[in-house]
Amino acid sequence: MAILVQKFGGSSVANPERIKAVAQRVVEAKQRGYQVVVVVSALGDTTDELIELARQISARPPKREMDMLLSTGEQVSIALLAMAIHELGHAVISLTGAQGGIITDATHTRAKILQVNTERVERELAEGKIVIVAGFQGVTPGYDITTLGRGGSDTTAVALAAALKAQECEIYTDVDGVYTADPRVVPSARKLADVSYGEMLEMASLGAGVLQPRAVEFASMYKVPIHVRSSFNYENGTMVREERVLEKDMIVVGVAHDVNVAKVGILDVPDRPGVAARIFSALAAEAINVDMIVQTTKEQQTTDMLFSVSRDDLPQAKEIVEAVAKELGAKGVIVNDNVAKVSIVGAGMVSNPGVAARMFEALAKANINIQVISTSEIKVSCLVRAEDALKAVRVVHEAFGLDQTDQATKAAM
Amino acid sequence: MAILVQKFGGSSVANPERIKAVAQRVVEAKQRGYQVVVVVSALGDTTDELIELARQISARPPKREMDMLLSTGEQVSIALLAMAIHELGHAVISLTGAQGGIITDATHTRAKILQVNTERVERELAEGKIVIVAGFQGVTPGYDITTLGRGGSDTTAVALAAALKAQECEIYTDVDGVYTADPRVVPSARKLADVSYGEMLEMASLGAGVLQPRAVEFASMYKVPIHVRSSFNYENGTMVREERVLEKDMIVVGVAHDVNVAKVGILDVPDRPGVAARIFSALAAEAINVDMIVQTTKEQQTTDMLFSVSRDDLPQAKEIVEAVAKELGAKGVIVNDNVAKVSIVGAGMVSNPGVAARMFEALAKANINIQVISTSEIKVSCLVRAEDALKAVRVVHEAFGLDQTDQATKAAM
Repeated sequence: MAILVQKFGGSSVANPERIKAVAQRVVEAKQRGYQVVVVVSALGDTTDELIELARQISARPPKREMDMLLSTGEQVSIALLAMAIHELGHAVISLTGAQGGIITDATHTRAKILQVNTERVERELAEGKIVIVAGFQGVTPGYDITTLGRGGSDTTAVALAAALKAQECEIYTDVDGVYTADPRVVPSARKLADVSYGEMLEMASLGAGVLQPRAVEFASMYKVPIHVRSSFNYENGTMVREERVLEKDMIVVGVAHDVNVAKVGILDVPDRPGVAARIFSALAAEAINVDMIVQTTKEQQTTDMLFSVSRDDLPQAKEIVEAVAKELGAKGVIVNDNVAKVSIVGAGMVSNPGVAARMFEALAKANINIQVISTSEIKVSCLVRAEDALKAVRVVHEAFGLDQTDQATKAAM
Repeated sequence: MAILVQKFGGSSVANPERIKAVAQRVVEAKQRGYQVVVVVSALGDTTDELIELARQISARPPKREMDMLLSTGEQVSIALLAMAIHELGHAVISLTGAQGGIITDATHTRAKILQVNTERVERELAEGKIVIVAGFQGVTPGYDITTLGRGGSDTTAVALAAALKAQECEIYTDVDGVYTADPRVVPSARKLADVSYGEMLEMASLGAGVLQPRAVEFASMYKVPIHVRSSFNYENGTMVREERVLEKDMIVVGVAHDVNVAKVGILDVPDRPGVAARIFSALAAEAINVDMIVQTTKEQQTTDMLFSVSRDDLPQAKEIVEAVAKELGAKGVIVNDNVAKVSIVGAGMVSNPGVAARMFEALAKANINIQVISTSEIKVSCLVRAEDALKAVRVVHEAFGLDQTDQATKAAM
């Protein structure tokens, strides 16, 4: 029997009524003949409430204890969803991340999945049960509870789908699918029927917010087809899979933006080998992800190093970088959280010169200053002032004709 | 180094301020030179809120899922308390029941502890850490989360104290210790400095509410001295230990009452062997505790069977008993939750005739009707109408002179 993994986010299970609706949806999949594994996030704002509770006790709580605290959120969800499914007369069992075999490393608050032990899940499926697994959480080989960081439930779902060789992983969310841009920012944005893992990865990393990047990486690695769709209707959403059919035709598939970003700079570092390594290994040691690194060497044998981090990580990053700057004899450290990242993504970009230039032109025409540029084979990202971000998305979306269903601009490029 | 186990109830950790106060108290014990193991309950009303959430989903949620849900309450407490202790600069780690090695049977919502695996706790203590273990919860050998039922955190604390060979188990609560009666009912009630396990067990079973009966059983079995004391002051509370010094002197140590009780009767059961076994094994199969069984056989070869159960168990008990009554050909089933149990407890009772009679006289003088009587070597319990309960406690307390510090009545008996 084919296995289907369904993942429901926090807004889909925000209250008892919605939990009952999710239960209905899960039972329908079971009735269509699937063995169903469900992954759920914490109810609505539970995680934020728990974080607030922790802040009232400690400004810098130990991360292991944060995981102990936050993992209760999903445990509540799985129990309630199991009750709702039981109420509909179906055999069901809820499992914590640990019980569901989600084994992670010990990087608390942003652990990485090392392994998925599927014995328990497979045993329960074989007994005819719907199996609910807590998203966002896992356990170290030493039995400490971990969490996977922001959006970690997606990763749980895809990792389970991969390990169970599921036919598909459905990600239910409060939007209809993946759009060419955030529809709240660009009302004419269109839903994409199909997107490749590579494109989705860039979209996700760049703040499209629909899917967690690590989840897409996992899906790509194990070839798990993901169906991103709404929990509030039955329409098809966006399929994320190995190669989309239209890849060569559609050069830019979307414009992403991310306001949860901050800029850090170390100025006038004496320019000698090992400087970059020293800075970024210090950040890596604290598991702070760095993005968009730009280095400019000046004539007087010093160098400026600019990079972006998640805004959440800024206080910690600042502390680390200030210590390293002192040690390296740098003149100073600047931080700025009044920035946002706007990016275009498309697998066709690599074979089409002039795509980046078109983006820069569109921004220049709108009088938007670019602070940092970073490119890959399938994306171009620009750091701009936070207040310019939404305007930037709109003008770039228009410049690539993403609101036109016939995509007339494709030929023009 | 001596090990001290400290247990804090829900009201002691009801909010961040109180959690900080508990942290302070724990650190003081550590500074006095103890290895400290702390057991905590869920914050304030958390458990009730979670039960309410479950009720919005299902009238009869599966018990396994209730345990999955309810166990999150203590997990929140242990994480927050660990943060508060860390904030005071002390090494600390929180452990769930499972991590703390609390292995139970699979009787969900009222599991029994089978074993305590102390390896992890001892390892963390050896590393100099304060160890916090979630009360009320455990794990089956098959890794399912269980809860120990009402007041289960006391049992966790005593079981850990026994397994770790702790010097003492401190139970912090919102009262100063064990009283000769509930001080809210009898203002002249006195705090007992010392009480034996047997007496405490009867007091606890009879609804004195300060300590969970199973915790006292455990303590008695493994000779763990318990110190019941207030988390709001530093005064000595009541020591519960093997034999109190004054045992022979003080015949009755206290008057307990329990309003969480209901009466069930099966009327006119054909009187043949095996009737009682059939009724009470059906109840036991659902883990319903039965108390105060009274059987009266009538001339016409039928028998009436009366017993009391916890009021929480009444709906389930009624269902079971009605089915059994039908099967046995009984005339009818009566249930009544308008009852309360009032009891006197004292280890000296066995060697002092006339104690029960003095209680009955006191009740009769106050015009209180006794519905059911049950006695043991160290207690006498009477079921009375719920509205008579508090008056009954007062008149019995007075009849045994428990408010008099010199206990003049002892000699008189």
